[in-house]
Amino acid sequence: MRLGVCYYPEHWPQANWAADARHMAETGITRVRIGEFAWSRVEPEPGRFDWGWLDKAIEVLHDAGLGVILGTPTATPPKWLVDQMPDMVAVDEQGRKRGFGSRRHYCFSHPGYREQAGRITRAYAERYGNHPAVIMWQTDNEYGCHDTVISYSDAARLAFRDWLSDRYKTIDALNSAWGNVFWSMEYRSFDEVDLPNLAVTEANPAHWLAFRRFSSDQVVAFDRAQVDILRQLSPGRDVMHNAMGFYTDYDHHDLGRQLDCVMWDSYPLGFLEMFRFSDADKRDYVRQGHPDIAAFHHDLYRGCAADGRWGVIEQQPGPVNWARNNPAPLPGMVRLWTLEAMAHGAELVSYFRWRQALFAQEQMHAGLLRPDGKAAPGLGEAAQASADIAAIQGSGELPNAEPVKEAAIIFSYESEWVTATQPQGEDLSALWANFTAYTQLRKLGLNVDIVAPGTDLSGYAMVVLPCLPIVADGLAEQLASFSGQIIIGPRSGSKTAEFSIPDNLALGPLQAIFPAQVSRSESLRAGVTHQGDGWAITRWLDHLESDAERELVSDDGMVACWKSANVRYCATWPEGEVMAVIAARAAHDAGLAAVPLPEGMRLRKAGKLSFLFNYRAESQAIPEALQGQMVLGDRLLPAAGIAVLRTV
Amino acid sequence: MRLGVCYYPEHWPQANWAADARHMAETGITRVRIGEFAWSRVEPEPGRFDWGWLDKAIEVLHDAGLGVILGTPTATPPKWLVDQMPDMVAVDEQGRKRGFGSRRHYCFSHPGYREQAGRITRAYAERYGNHPAVIMWQTDNEYGCHDTVISYSDAARLAFRDWLSDRYKTIDALNSAWGNVFWSMEYRSFDEVDLPNLAVTEANPAHWLAFRRFSSDQVVAFDRAQVDILRQLSPGRDVMHNAMGFYTDYDHHDLGRQLDCVMWDSYPLGFLEMFRFSDADKRDYVRQGHPDIAAFHHDLYRGCAADGRWGVIEQQPGPVNWARNNPAPLPGMVRLWTLEAMAHGAELVSYFRWRQALFAQEQMHAGLLRPDGKAAPGLGEAAQASADIAAIQGSGELPNAEPVKEAAIIFSYESEWVTATQPQGEDLSALWANFTAYTQLRKLGLNVDIVAPGTDLSGYAMVVLPCLPIVADGLAEQLASFSGQIIIGPRSGSKTAEFSIPDNLALGPLQAIFPAQVSRSESLRAGVTHQGDGWAITRWLDHLESDAERELVSDDGMVACWKSANVRYCATWPEGEVMAVIAARAAHDAGLAAVPLPEGMRLRKAGKLSFLFNYRAESQAIPEALQGQMVLGDRLLPAAGIAVLRTV
Amino acid sequence: MRLGVCYYPEHWPQANWAADARHMAETGITRVRIGEFAWSRVEPEPGRFDWGWLDKAIEVLHDAGLGVILGTPTATPPKWLVDQMPDMVAVDEQGRKRGFGSRRHYCFSHPGYREQAGRITRAYAERYGNHPAVIMWQTDNEYGCHDTVISYSDAARLAFRDWLSDRYKTIDALNSAWGNVFWSMEYRSFDEVDLPNLAVTEANPAHWLAFRRFSSDQVVAFDRAQVDILRQLSPGRDVMHNAMGFYTDYDHHDLGRQLDCVMWDSYPLGFLEMFRFSDADKRDYVRQGHPDIAAFHHDLYRGCAADGRWGVIEQQPGPVNWARNNPAPLPGMVRLWTLEAMAHGAELVSYFRWRQALFAQEQMHAGLLRPDGKAAPGLGEAAQASADIAAIQGSGELPNAEPVKEAAIIFSYESEWVTATQPQGEDLSALWANFTAYTQLRKLGLNVDIVAPGTDLSGYAMVVLPCLPIVADGLAEQLASFSGQIIIGPRSGSKTAEFSIPDNLALGPLQAIFPAQVSRSESLRAGVTHQGDGWAITRWLDHLESDAERELVSDDGMVACWKSANVRYCATWPEGEVMAVIAARAAHDAGLAAVPLPEGMRLRKAGKLSFLFNYRAESQAIPEALQGQMVLGDRLLPAAGIAVLRTV
Ligand SMILES: [Zn+2]
Ligand SMILES: [Zn+2]
Ligand SMILES: [Zn+2]
Repeated sequence: MRLGVCYYPEHWPQANWAADARHMAETGITRVRIGEFAWSRVEPEPGRFDWGWLDKAIEVLHDAGLGVILGTPTATPPKWLVDQMPDMVAVDEQGRKRGFGSRRHYCFSHPGYREQAGRITRAYAERYGNHPAVIMWQTDNEYGCHDTVISYSDAARLAFRDWLSDRYKTIDALNSAWGNVFWSMEYRSFDEVDLPNLAVTEANPAHWLAFRRFSSDQVVAFDRAQVDILRQLSPGRDVMHNAMGFYTDYDHHDLGRQLDCVMWDSYPLGFLEMFRFSDADKRDYVRQGHPDIAAFHHDLYRGCAADGRWGVIEQQPGPVNWARNNPAPLPGMVRLWTLEAMAHGAELVSYFRWRQALFAQEQMHAGLLRPDGKAAPGLGEAAQASADIAAIQGSGELPNAEPVKEAAIIFSYESEWVTATQPQGEDLSALWANFTAYTQLRKLGLNVDIVAPGTDLSGYAMVVLPCLPIVADGLAEQLASFSGQIIIGPRSGSKTAEFSIPDNLALGPLQAIFPAQVSRSESLRAGVTHQGDGWAITRWLDHLESDAERELVSDDGMVACWKSANVRYCATWPEGEVMAVIAARAAHDAGLAAVPLPEGMRLRKAGKLSFLFNYRAESQAIPEALQGQMVLGDRLLPAAGIAVLRTV
Repeated sequence: MRLGVCYYPEHWPQANWAADARHMAETGITRVRIGEFAWSRVEPEPGRFDWGWLDKAIEVLHDAGLGVILGTPTATPPKWLVDQMPDMVAVDEQGRKRGFGSRRHYCFSHPGYREQAGRITRAYAERYGNHPAVIMWQTDNEYGCHDTVISYSDAARLAFRDWLSDRYKTIDALNSAWGNVFWSMEYRSFDEVDLPNLAVTEANPAHWLAFRRFSSDQVVAFDRAQVDILRQLSPGRDVMHNAMGFYTDYDHHDLGRQLDCVMWDSYPLGFLEMFRFSDADKRDYVRQGHPDIAAFHHDLYRGCAADGRWGVIEQQPGPVNWARNNPAPLPGMVRLWTLEAMAHGAELVSYFRWRQALFAQEQMHAGLLRPDGKAAPGLGEAAQASADIAAIQGSGELPNAEPVKEAAIIFSYESEWVTATQPQGEDLSALWANFTAYTQLRKLGLNVDIVAPGTDLSGYAMVVLPCLPIVADGLAEQLASFSGQIIIGPRSGSKTAEFSIPDNLALGPLQAIFPAQVSRSESLRAGVTHQGDGWAITRWLDHLESDAERELVSDDGMVACWKSANVRYCATWPEGEVMAVIAARAAHDAGLAAVPLPEGMRLRKAGKLSFLFNYRAESQAIPEALQGQMVLGDRLLPAAGIAVLRTV
Repeated sequence: MRLGVCYYPEHWPQANWAADARHMAETGITRVRIGEFAWSRVEPEPGRFDWGWLDKAIEVLHDAGLGVILGTPTATPPKWLVDQMPDMVAVDEQGRKRGFGSRRHYCFSHPGYREQAGRITRAYAERYGNHPAVIMWQTDNEYGCHDTVISYSDAARLAFRDWLSDRYKTIDALNSAWGNVFWSMEYRSFDEVDLPNLAVTEANPAHWLAFRRFSSDQVVAFDRAQVDILRQLSPGRDVMHNAMGFYTDYDHHDLGRQLDCVMWDSYPLGFLEMFRFSDADKRDYVRQGHPDIAAFHHDLYRGCAADGRWGVIEQQPGPVNWARNNPAPLPGMVRLWTLEAMAHGAELVSYFRWRQALFAQEQMHAGLLRPDGKAAPGLGEAAQASADIAAIQGSGELPNAEPVKEAAIIFSYESEWVTATQPQGEDLSALWANFTAYTQLRKLGLNVDIVAPGTDLSGYAMVVLPCLPIVADGLAEQLASFSGQIIIGPRSGSKTAEFSIPDNLALGPLQAIFPAQVSRSESLRAGVTHQGDGWAITRWLDHLESDAERELVSDDGMVACWKSANVRYCATWPEGEVMAVIAARAAHDAGLAAVPLPEGMRLRKAGKLSFLFNYRAESQAIPEALQGQMVLGDRLLPAAGIAVLRTV
């Protein structure tokens, strides 16, 4: 695994560049991402290009032996372009234009901007496509950041109608698929279809789902245009894009399929503060992040990458600026995060950013260097990580060589679109059902891959569908021939591809592997539970008509888990103790050697190596069940400590 | 009392209809509501009508012996109509058009849409007005649902100016009535008056009150046009409309006056989750609903009906789809709700809906049948209720024959408009003051009617005005001649008809029956109380200048209740223990035999019958004070249990 | 000190005026503010003036011996003016016009409205500029009330571009100052610059800061135009404006510089309810207000006044109408608030309003009289205060004669603009850092002045900068020559004048007096603390590189307070126990005789007089350390009690 860094030469005097590059190399860094926000410097006026400074910057980095990852600057079109085409911006759900002044001020459906994005991509690629320093491209930056995938613009409306016409062919087919007879919502032509926002009350969920699919497709098509240009003009270089955390507005499986490599931007402390973690987690892990945040995304994005190539292109190196509160990482966490990515098979961990900016929106975002150019705490940890990587690689075991397959989670982006459109209960989200199920599997010490429907499942002992409302064609058949243990979570198989209820009710196609119908579903407010023996039914309860075994039954007779042959159905929300019990039983039946880990400790197995990570702020010992030769660290892991064992 | 059901033949194959109709009849159902969302099927293109399917559906229902309640489809104008008149939609308080894509996408003030609504109503009435199956009409559906009474459209502004000109005659009269000298708000002509939204800070409360009255009048006039057409073209049939729960944006007394019958839509579990109940109530009654939700509306809407004819046209039969959380009713609750409506004098309880839809917005809303056509739990309870009704009616006592009058609450819709415009304290609402006062009266086992100002009060032993800021002409005189006990709640008589302070201060005209002036009012944040003996002053405190007796005085000398002759003044918010004490004293003085009921048990007396309902999830015994012959059930009521006693 | 009252003769029959004026005079009132909302009565139609009633009103007041403070009516332009220039209104951040119907419906940048404001001011001044009754003018009313300083109108955009051009001269200078190279935000001309709202995500903080400065300057310029007219046409009269509480949208130091006197509007109960006080404070002081609300503003606005002349032009006399909850003051509080203003040096306390209005928006706002004209509780307290003032003045000590200087807080309005734009942690506000620091100083019994940067500091023993991100030129030098104790709070010196990070990092220029660099800052969510000995680090932590002494170190080694020579650096948020400890140490080192006061008691020293105020609802004794001759009251202060001691 290599180390990299994100760098903005345009923010600093040219005189600094060479020293910066040398300093990077000394730290163990070999890759530098640049250029992705530099449009106004590359093309200060329409058609007038100023390449000189960028030529120089690339040369300086090259001279220091650094490989350049060059970003296309399409996330930040300059003001003159917006003034030329004022309708190129996205429109929010309330109908307001989302204007210039920050970034991502464009609508994916605007034909004029698509053309301009192609033009500037081509200009970048023509200039640097064959430059020996340039070894990888990044398309744009963080598609969807600041809620920009979904736009309610005129351009989007027109494009949506075309997309609908392509998908449904006739308006009758659309009316029938969506059930538009309901509430007299029938259309007479595609030209009558508007976007689903600003209806009096909620629009048809099928309308929303189509619009979410369309919006995702627009991102993929926008990206595709850049990928095609870069492949043509920069042969032999990889193309990647940087995904965000806990983000589902476009289908990353679709995007990953057209890239060489999927990267993501890892900010564990910001994510902990801003997303759906408990107050206790937000307090206990305030300087570490919840122990599954980074790993979940490593495993998710590895599953999005066509050939399994992935990495972290932005790694938090200190406090950030964008969360509600912005604490500093516990000493050791920057190193821990780096090595955890290695354990999960990353090819790159790149820190964001080299030096903290003096000005503008991200001036409070830490870098490896302070704004005055002196070392920030992250720099030493990056250097230490570089040494650790060398030591681990020197042990003769390559972490990525021999994947250890244990459990696979099947996740689809559509799942989240379904639950976001129709949660039916407070805060119920398919993505988070996947996260909480993942957590319970990981607490057992299992390796977990998160895969798209259709992925080859051979080699796994266990498959989990935490919440998969729409079951793609063929999945039920594939699962029927899977001989390991299967856990199906609530709402799975409850929707057709067009967001209606299957004629045979839930579990729909999954009835082929589990003999049950969901006769009724209910959502339960916080505090309403059915207590079992050390677990409880909370938030959701599917009532089944089934001859399956009632494996977990609450004191008042409600069934939390049903079992039939090698399949379990979790009828309540897949989180907490009830999921822990189900996961442990399935792992046992699957013959997996679960190793219950202490609170906040996590394990990842890679070939013969076992990586252990201590997310707690106190030291903790490795469980006795794990034995081997110490490659790194000790059996007593300090706060933010790491150990690597080699199985003998 | 009859049972009915809401049915959407257009959602299902014609081949199913006959079997559905038979199945309904077997369940004990004799009424079916249809047609109210079917405009796009009846008139798929402008002027082209397709009646065939509806002719057939009505025939099939008729053949099964079912009476049809036919709804005009004006709540769901088709897309082609909206595209013809894009300005027919309502505009929200922020100025955004409320577009097509769900339902109720029209502004009550739009002249073009009024014409279209008349046209389609006439078409329905011409076709089916004399059909023997059609025994009742429903106008539109749930006026005001999704916050649609109040529209800030251009059409509304123009109509409002006309309305003002009719009401005030001269602009000087308006300026004077509203006190527009304040802050230089004076107008020179009606054409200068805008709607009260989007002012820099709050608009004149008199401006708001006029706009609320206007908005309510627009609903009544819109409805009136349909009523007139239906009465003309469908002689001998009843006309009703379906009201919602906890909804006050139009004056239901005004609407009720022009209808034959007032129906309402009863969703106790959804209402519990979405409205102002405590967390404890939301937990304890999660599967039952608060025990006063259904009864309060029964008693309220009975008071809105011209001749006291009312019913439940939509009864929750299982989980719904529209609340934040959607649990299933406790077994027995669907039957309990049905029989409680009977006890309060309903002529119909109709379940919503027959069969759960496979598609669109309400696909997660339960029906009596599941989406696959098999029986859902509600079906058996409806059948049981049908048998119970027969048994009760067979006892020789008709519940509605001899009303038992005990306490009357006087409520006006204007009260809520006043407190919503000027709450003066957090969450203070006249409607909810009525609800909490009602609850305390009901816990004493009293029959409570909720009536409009001006209703004949003879026969009552007790009258309660929980919060009546504007006292209509004549009411004080009427109360002066009332010889029973009177309770006046806070803010009553504190406003003139034009939302100013009476010259003689509060209690304004009520000083004729209670010798006091409110010299000062204060609102108290949660946690700020004046403790009394087992009760407390909370949320509101009126300070009185009065020689009346200080009946309830707090430890620190504040007066919670004043008494003069047969009238009490409750100077704090009429809820909880303090209202319980005041209600009990007044009931005692009124000579009413209060029967304090166990938590969650409720009583309704009808003729010689006493109905008891147990809303708790545990069994509870009927209090010893209640004796009689068991017509239904036992003295130990199970969870969700019902008993009927006959006084001998 | 004089007493005054706000009066609206236009709301009452002329027949009442003479009696009202007599009644005021009998109460001890000598000043009356009128006219500030009367435009529609003075100019009922464009160009047609009706002065008769106002001539009469002034005459009547004059005849009763009352001095008139006349307000220009520009806060309430009449409807006919708005209809003439519909674009004169402000536009909110979401792009919605803020229309007629209440008050303050104008944009400070609109040239047409500026002209009209000048025209009506001139008309008022020509008519009454030399009237013997008129002794003072108020410009407009509460600039900024209802969030009206910042407008996103077209007029504002054009004016902003001009302002930018004046400030930066060239667009390159602006691009460089703001760091617009970041995210390609560079402009090619001033005409490309838009307002910072409605950007996709947050705009450049430098863009916001410039817009905040511009918006403040527009207010000052708007006011300046009126001041110039009034000075020209009404020679010898004072001009003042009435500021609000906890309000920072314009720079009150700038405004104060052009006025003769700064007045403010004091509503302690409303402010307690609506602003950032703890639930415990909101409960314990519900009828008194937090004991520092009034004093903080007295000391703040005295520091804004050019010659230190200030007063309270609107004093809460009972419950108000505009807070979430509106309790009544504890008996005695109206008197207490009045005398506390005297202790802090006010020249006037004027109650708002004389008589509670019968109609319109403020009908629930108490006056000295009830709506029916009888005395409200505030009237007696005003009369008592009048007698008390006479008694105190009769003691031979003029409170304002000899200011007692102890501690000075340095506050700038820009500080709050910086923290509001970039809080970096939840609810972190420079204004509130100043308030909480002020509270801790006051609990030690110290006199505290709140001054603008640049104010002469001679005479003070102690200077505190609770949170001063931008350090104005010259301040560091001034502090270097200050020999007393200095406390510097977090984030001070962390920003340049253009909202970037200083090249030498924080403390920027303050490194001249404190040898430290802030190497890293972190914000901490509620519940995350570093415990010290009786104090804790909460909400914020600056990590320093410094050789300074670590004066307060937490159990886990974090430094809460650093000390070097006469300067302390408070590295955590300056509130609660940690600020109490730091303040006490600095006061001790400064040689100030701190007198720790009982909870809720406050002290203000004026000349030889010591005023003591008991904000608790229970009686409390004056601390033994305070001795002297009783001028007013006793050593045991009752609830809401006052005592005045004379040092011998
Ligand atoms: Zn981002
Ligand atoms: Zn509804
Ligand atoms: Zn104000």
